[in-house]
Amino acid sequence: MFEAKLAAAGEAVEGRLRMLLAPDRPGGIEAGRLGDAMRYAALGGGKRLRPFLVVESAALFGVPQSAALNAAAAVECVHCYSLVHDDLPAMDDDDVRRGRATVHRAFDEATAILAGDGLLTLAFEILGRPETHPDAAVRLQLVGELARAAGWEGMAGGQQLDLEASNTAQDTASIARIQALKTGALIGFAARAGAVLARAGAQERRALACYADRLGLAFQIADDILDAVGDPAIVGKATGKDAAAGKATFVSLLGLAEARERLKGLEAEAIAALDPFGARASALQEAARFVAQRRS
Amino acid sequence: MFEAKLAAAGEAVEGRLRMLLAPDRPGGIEAGRLGDAMRYAALGGGKRLRPFLVVESAALFGVPQSAALNAAAAVECVHCYSLVHDDLPAMDDDDVRRGRATVHRAFDEATAILAGDGLLTLAFEILGRPETHPDAAVRLQLVGELARAAGWEGMAGGQQLDLEASNTAQDTASIARIQALKTGALIGFAARAGAVLARAGAQERRALACYADRLGLAFQIADDILDAVGDPAIVGKATGKDAAAGKATFVSLLGLAEARERLKGLEAEAIAALDPFGARASALQEAARFVAQRRS
Repeated sequence: MFEAKLAAAGEAVEGRLRMLLAPDRPGGIEAGRLGDAMRYAALGGGKRLRPFLVVESAALFGVPQSAALNAAAAVECVHCYSLVHDDLPAMDDDDVRRGRATVHRAFDEATAILAGDGLLTLAFEILGRPETHPDAAVRLQLVGELARAAGWEGMAGGQQLDLEASNTAQDTASIARIQALKTGALIGFAARAGAVLARAGAQERRALACYADRLGLAFQIADDILDAVGDPAIVGKATGKDAAAGKATFVSLLGLAEARERLKGLEAEAIAALDPFGARASALQEAARFVAQRRS
Repeated sequence: MFEAKLAAAGEAVEGRLRMLLAPDRPGGIEAGRLGDAMRYAALGGGKRLRPFLVVESAALFGVPQSAALNAAAAVECVHCYSLVHDDLPAMDDDDVRRGRATVHRAFDEATAILAGDGLLTLAFEILGRPETHPDAAVRLQLVGELARAAGWEGMAGGQQLDLEASNTAQDTASIARIQALKTGALIGFAARAGAVLARAGAQERRALACYADRLGLAFQIADDILDAVGDPAIVGKATGKDAAAGKATFVSLLGLAEARERLKGLEAEAIAALDPFGARASALQEAARFVAQRRS
């Protein structure tokens, strides 16, 4: 049931991204190799968890999937840009992502930098379009919230801190803070986006923000566990990198058993945060289970 | 007179950028080294030509400078991000910019990539703020136009084509097309921004777009001439790079005399495009003279 919903949202956002990134779309110019690299980065892969959160948080308030797809596509563009830049030799220096060559490996480094830049910029172009929401104020709110989630006080700031953290001793509080920026901020935006699209009230936004906060941290702990014990053939990227780099993770600081315990607690808190929505929130609640129990 | 106006607009936008990038601004988080790199990239240097175009195109319609500064700061953030990424080793590999070390030299490559990402993202955050314009529809139009000017069908697409052009034979038409994207698109946005802020009519926007088109090409030809004959101590960056790289430029294709002739023609066309505005446009017209005759 949940996997089917996740796959359906993934297919819908894939279709929207294909349209937005089409080489022969009306009025578009031929973007050549850059367009190829952007499509390579954004199409045909990934769990599409963030678009799913947008679509399902919108569904909580009766917003149909079709009306949430631009916002979902925008958040996925930002996610994909961050993967392309994080994989660069100057950053995490990864050769494989989603089971295939990273963008700078499949193309070249300059093209990868520009493809990331292009996807980030496209996200804001998409949010600005009338199809994203009929009300200009809603579109602007999405622009402002996505910019804050993605920028120096959000995801980009978290990636910087994460790179610096490799060289200094860390405790779980500082790792949690870094991850709240690096992965939590964008997941939080995705989970709140439906409430923005529906012009929902502050209380409902807070419930979704609380859910997203626990979900983002659970996602990161699950990632650390996968890096420690996952099979690279299933995970789709190299594992054991953190230990090899001597990098502090939730697993190295807490041990595997305690990290799994923490993960279980966060899963329960994420689910409880959505109780006010009743049965309508079951898909989002299943997403928390999925994130905590994922194998890839 | 013109130099004083350019300096005044530059100082005003510098002040706004300082505020937007302040480490201790209200509600801001400590962005540490990333914030340092973003300030290094965006503050204390450059001619601020694009902010000047925003401020002066706004003044054409009676929009006061203070009401144009957010749009001016946003376009400068995008310009500075593009310089940081273009200077990277994987792209143009430059060590000096504006007479000092480039960001990846002063900091490191990963920080430079993230500082560029952060500045690009900040530009959209700034445009989304209520201080940018009281009307949400105007702010959204700025977001959409800036995204198109900066993205894969604008500046980023032009940079990609420019990198690829190093390896293939080029004629002046294809170089002009590449430059229209790489530098012209953002200059065009800056020159039209005042009309957007003032909700001016289509005819006035077209006149500004025509002016910006000629100005952008003039800017690039002047850049090629400076690269060929300029003094690096005055230009503030390495010169002679294009010839050393065997790269086709307006100077290598047309010769110096013909390139200077072309530049003069573009200067005259840019000035003529603003004739409908009368004496109000004199500062923008002087900007065209400045661009065509600049020594750095």
